[in-house]
Amino acid sequence: MSVQHQALAARTAAQTLATATRAQKDAALHAMADALSKAETAVLEANALDVARAEQAGMSAAIVDRLRLTADRVAGMVDGLRDVAALPDPVGDVVRGWTNANGVEVRQVRVPFGVVGMIYEARPNVTADAAGLCLKSGNAVLLRGSSSAADSNAAVVEALRDGLADAGLPADAVQLVPGPREVTDELMAARGLVDVLIPRGGAGLIDHVVRHSVVPVIETGVGNCHLYVDASADPATALAILLNAKTQRPSVCNAVETLLVHADAAPRFLPDALAALADAGVTVHGDEATSSYGPGVVPAVQEDWDTEYLSLDLAARVVNSLDEAIGHVRDHSTGHSETIVTDSASAAQRFTAEVDAAAVLVNASSRFVDGGEFGFGAEIGISTQKLHARGPMGLPEMTSTKYVVTGSGQVR
Amino acid sequence: MSVQHQALAARTAAQTLATATRAQKDAALHAMADALSKAETAVLEANALDVARAEQAGMSAAIVDRLRLTADRVAGMVDGLRDVAALPDPVGDVVRGWTNANGVEVRQVRVPFGVVGMIYEARPNVTADAAGLCLKSGNAVLLRGSSSAADSNAAVVEALRDGLADAGLPADAVQLVPGPREVTDELMAARGLVDVLIPRGGAGLIDHVVRHSVVPVIETGVGNCHLYVDASADPATALAILLNAKTQRPSVCNAVETLLVHADAAPRFLPDALAALADAGVTVHGDEATSSYGPGVVPAVQEDWDTEYLSLDLAARVVNSLDEAIGHVRDHSTGHSETIVTDSASAAQRFTAEVDAAAVLVNASSRFVDGGEFGFGAEIGISTQKLHARGPMGLPEMTSTKYVVTGSGQVR
Repeated sequence: MSVQHQALAARTAAQTLATATRAQKDAALHAMADALSKAETAVLEANALDVARAEQAGMSAAIVDRLRLTADRVAGMVDGLRDVAALPDPVGDVVRGWTNANGVEVRQVRVPFGVVGMIYEARPNVTADAAGLCLKSGNAVLLRGSSSAADSNAAVVEALRDGLADAGLPADAVQLVPGPREVTDELMAARGLVDVLIPRGGAGLIDHVVRHSVVPVIETGVGNCHLYVDASADPATALAILLNAKTQRPSVCNAVETLLVHADAAPRFLPDALAALADAGVTVHGDEATSSYGPGVVPAVQEDWDTEYLSLDLAARVVNSLDEAIGHVRDHSTGHSETIVTDSASAAQRFTAEVDAAAVLVNASSRFVDGGEFGFGAEIGISTQKLHARGPMGLPEMTSTKYVVTGSGQVR
Repeated sequence: MSVQHQALAARTAAQTLATATRAQKDAALHAMADALSKAETAVLEANALDVARAEQAGMSAAIVDRLRLTADRVAGMVDGLRDVAALPDPVGDVVRGWTNANGVEVRQVRVPFGVVGMIYEARPNVTADAAGLCLKSGNAVLLRGSSSAADSNAAVVEALRDGLADAGLPADAVQLVPGPREVTDELMAARGLVDVLIPRGGAGLIDHVVRHSVVPVIETGVGNCHLYVDASADPATALAILLNAKTQRPSVCNAVETLLVHADAAPRFLPDALAALADAGVTVHGDEATSSYGPGVVPAVQEDWDTEYLSLDLAARVVNSLDEAIGHVRDHSTGHSETIVTDSASAAQRFTAEVDAAAVLVNASSRFVDGGEFGFGAEIGISTQKLHARGPMGLPEMTSTKYVVTGSGQVR
């Protein structure tokens, strides 16, 4: 079936979802969870095929690990669907409303987008997570997963569609989009059929989609995040935040990639920091000034300032002023999460006002920039663009709005 | 100067605007108004050159009229700038905020986009309107007007830049982007330099920008708007709304283009309606059933259902059910403003729930779908897309948001 046919079927399903009640959608989410739970063996068998293929192809251990499902990971997907059922339904929320002088009532109401396209990489759990969030927000979803996870995704989607049908909602609300690379191009060209595309994955994937899609895109996730230790920073606070933001989970987009240290703070901060980073297994790629504060610093090259390592590597530079720090962030930030550690109210004020990013943090770990930590209950991704949604995206960010205007015959 | 150089200068200006206070911006808007007022003679002389060129080129009277400035129209632009100064500043508004269990404070705050690109057609007043709205919302603006208005736009922008400089804000916050057609392509390719493009004009222009821009776009304005007269509609109410929505200002995007009439309502509605439309100078392009209710109906062809006439023309069709009406709207709507006239609560409920558009209206004229009528004080355009903003766009819709996260050393 072509992408166009799939998208048309999704649009029809979306019309049903748009007027489905919360009770219907929650029942469907539980039915999807039940069906996925029952299909555990089939899903694990399908996943074993994907894993074997990846190992034969010589893929890295990290990729194979992301691909691998276990009984625990399937249970996590099942629980995720039930968690989404427990979240409030954004559809129908009145964002604002008023009555005009002539008695015409205006209400801005949340409505689903319609059809969402997800383009994503190895992890098969994204398949269930995205399907759950899209269904709850009243959207049909076209899931374009990685070919490396083709068997796992097919097994998961089959279960989810069974659940939808059990609950009396259209199975075509959740569809896997299989096929060769050209299929992704067709999805990106399906303007008018697909309402929004959300790419999730590495910088290369996201950049490709953003540059080639005619369908509107929500850009997610690339985080070249900076931590700036200001002249007035408490060294112990700065070190705790640095270690947490760099090492607690280095593979995620809100991990810190570059450390900037004010020259006045460097003597009392960097010697201990470099030792602690070395203890934690972090390789520091530093400028000359940084390397003067401790052993083992690898000389930084220009590209280090623009690298999202996603590993136990850290670029580091000593700056002479807050202006120099803000200038460095402006030149190299991907607009995700930028942190200042400081005891100066004026420095904090300037940093938060002048740094342009989805999140700016003062004296807190950038690891808090996350839908779960923000209390959203679930997250479809972290937007690094300025249109529509910026930062962690929960269910309300998966909706548009519609003005409902009600009168009794008024004209202009 | 290349588009890239202009965009870089705009980015630098935008950094200043992002932290400018409301008082600074309002003072600049008044200085721009003063400068434009003083430049009235120069602007009218420049406009006379544009008008003469357009007349020589044999452009239509409608286009020449849109192009022509008068002392009154210049005064309207001046007043518009002062009106924008009087509007609340959206920048810095806290959209929502909370404190996490660990004491970390999260605030979602409105911030400017940065650099906005406007691509628009003949009317030179858009130049001043867009500059005012962008400045107030803290955005630098690159104005890509029509070549037919080149002299007028240059004179207006020169005055606005003088005003900015008088007020101590960077003149490069408002720049005209001159040059051949290729310049528009450069603007659409300036991802990372330009934050958002807003095309305003005909369907051809908007479609071209939407399909070719790598910069995120806010789609505005094409309105193939329907008015459905339900079986239970009061004929007098329906006729008043129809005449207003079709004839009060037929050249605008919220004017009605297609009339759908339930077969049960047709005998008591269409004879009077066709007579009244004829009296108002409206040409009705109707299906066979419609033409059976009165003389002078031109047979509708397939493309009438998809035509945004923007003139005293109206497509008309008799339908047998609410479902058929909703189906017709789904097949032909551009998602702008769709109206039902009915006395049935259930029909109104179904129509507003099932029709997917920026605005759905019950018993009121679609001419109310307008930033001014909505009380926004000013309008940059009417978005017909689902991402970011949908419907009339005021100052808040010209902003993005940023999460400001403040802690006292918290880590995960």
